[in-house]
Amino acid sequence: MDHLDRMLETHPHPAHSDGDIASACIRACFDCVEACTTCADACLAEDDVQSMVACIRLDLDCADICGVTGRLIARPSPRDADVLRLQLQACAAICRACGDECEKHGRHGMEHCRVCADACRACAEACDAMAGALVP
Amino acid sequence: MDHLDRMLETHPHPAHSDGDIASACIRACFDCVEACTTCADACLAEDDVQSMVACIRLDLDCADICGVTGRLIARPSPRDADVLRLQLQACAAICRACGDECEKHGRHGMEHCRVCADACRACAEACDAMAGALVP
Amino acid sequence: MDHLDRMLETHPHPAHSDGDIASACIRACFDCVEACTTCADACLAEDDVQSMVACIRLDLDCADICGVTGRLIARPSPRDADVLRLQLQACAAICRACGDECEKHGRHGMEHCRVCADACRACAEACDAMAGALVP
Amino acid sequence: MDHLDRMLETHPHPAHSDGDIASACIRACFDCVEACTTCADACLAEDDVQSMVACIRLDLDCADICGVTGRLIARPSPRDADVLRLQLQACAAICRACGDECEKHGRHGMEHCRVCADACRACAEACDAMAGALVP
Repeated sequence: MDHLDRMLETHPHPAHSDGDIASACIRACFDCVEACTTCADACLAEDDVQSMVACIRLDLDCADICGVTGRLIARPSPRDADVLRLQLQACAAICRACGDECEKHGRHGMEHCRVCADACRACAEACDAMAGALVP
Repeated sequence: MDHLDRMLETHPHPAHSDGDIASACIRACFDCVEACTTCADACLAEDDVQSMVACIRLDLDCADICGVTGRLIARPSPRDADVLRLQLQACAAICRACGDECEKHGRHGMEHCRVCADACRACAEACDAMAGALVP
Repeated sequence: MDHLDRMLETHPHPAHSDGDIASACIRACFDCVEACTTCADACLAEDDVQSMVACIRLDLDCADICGVTGRLIARPSPRDADVLRLQLQACAAICRACGDECEKHGRHGMEHCRVCADACRACAEACDAMAGALVP
Repeated sequence: MDHLDRMLETHPHPAHSDGDIASACIRACFDCVEACTTCADACLAEDDVQSMVACIRLDLDCADICGVTGRLIARPSPRDADVLRLQLQACAAICRACGDECEKHGRHGMEHCRVCADACRACAEACDAMAGALVP
């Protein structure tokens, strides 16, 4: 089902010589959109919703920021590196914050939070790598 | 890197007994967001942009609709089936329209359009399957 | 600060002779994005979050669907009327569902829900009007 | 039709004592989503699309970033100031870049670009003001 790599390969004028980093970043962003969107819904389905409020808020912000970051990186034509860098930094920051909060709940047996924490960390690292690979 | 299946499995109260159809639909939606977002950018990088205008417009609409459809299905708690059905129908319709347009350009050697057409068709089918599996 | 009407007036080839209905629909959609996004956050800040779970879920779906519907209508070039009609129907349906739920909480003194119900109803009506004005 | 101010006023525990700056920022963000979305579609409807490619790309990025920034600020509960600051900086940066490009076309008589440039500049300023008002 996966079409991303072939899309990036067939782009007429991509900005990046190394499409693998961009591909990994886009994938990690949308993977994190999925995880955080499902995690917020799962948190709302827990018996003690009150204790999940901080997690739900971070999940919502994280899903939104990852979604727009994924879309930006999925446009491979040359872009203003400053904008991309700030967006990638915002994305890495919310992913770390959300991953930390989810990790806490994961340690207390909340399995969807543990998995979501994984997705958040992977996305933070992929955004860092992408920021480091930006053509200035 | 993929966390979606584990997220859906660990949700406390999912609406659907069959998570595989939902999982396939979510994946196809975000796969199509990626493909259409990259395709619009690739079309803008073609020498003859003028001939790609209809394709770019469909790509933009398709990426937006697939994105919101993916987010809705990624919230597995019980939902109003009527809303989901209409959203899935809108998504299948734009995916078919975008896939048809991309297919035309693909036949004339525009490879990113050919790949994008694949992603669109796969998403249309996944939305049809999901609509058929909705718990009323 | 409002630029929407001038944007629609200066579009080279809009599909609609009557830009007022489109303008009202776009405005109502983004007004509802704001209301539902703030309402979900406000519900999460209530003492008894548990009783707000259904409202939060509808707020999240409604904000997402209104956002994409507003973007689609904000692209005035001719579009496939079937896709727009389904998207407008999905939007009106979620706005009515979300408005009904918010209205219940509004009657029990939850003021942000009462205001959000207003925004949802206005958006449902604007989407109905827009669907009726679509050029087939 | 406008419900935003009443939504912010009735939030149980907003982070900001001064809701006017947040309200102006949210409004400017969604105003810019509308302007940039319509501008990209209008650029695609111009006779010489080729000369509008850079503008279309900036419009698309700007609409996406403004949309997510508006949603984040529309959640008034206390948030991580670092994430918000980075997101507001990314938003101000893309608004300036998009406003500069639109301004050029506006000077050559492209009226929708002139209006869009206004919306972009207003949003950049509103994001700067909001960043300055963040509670650390």
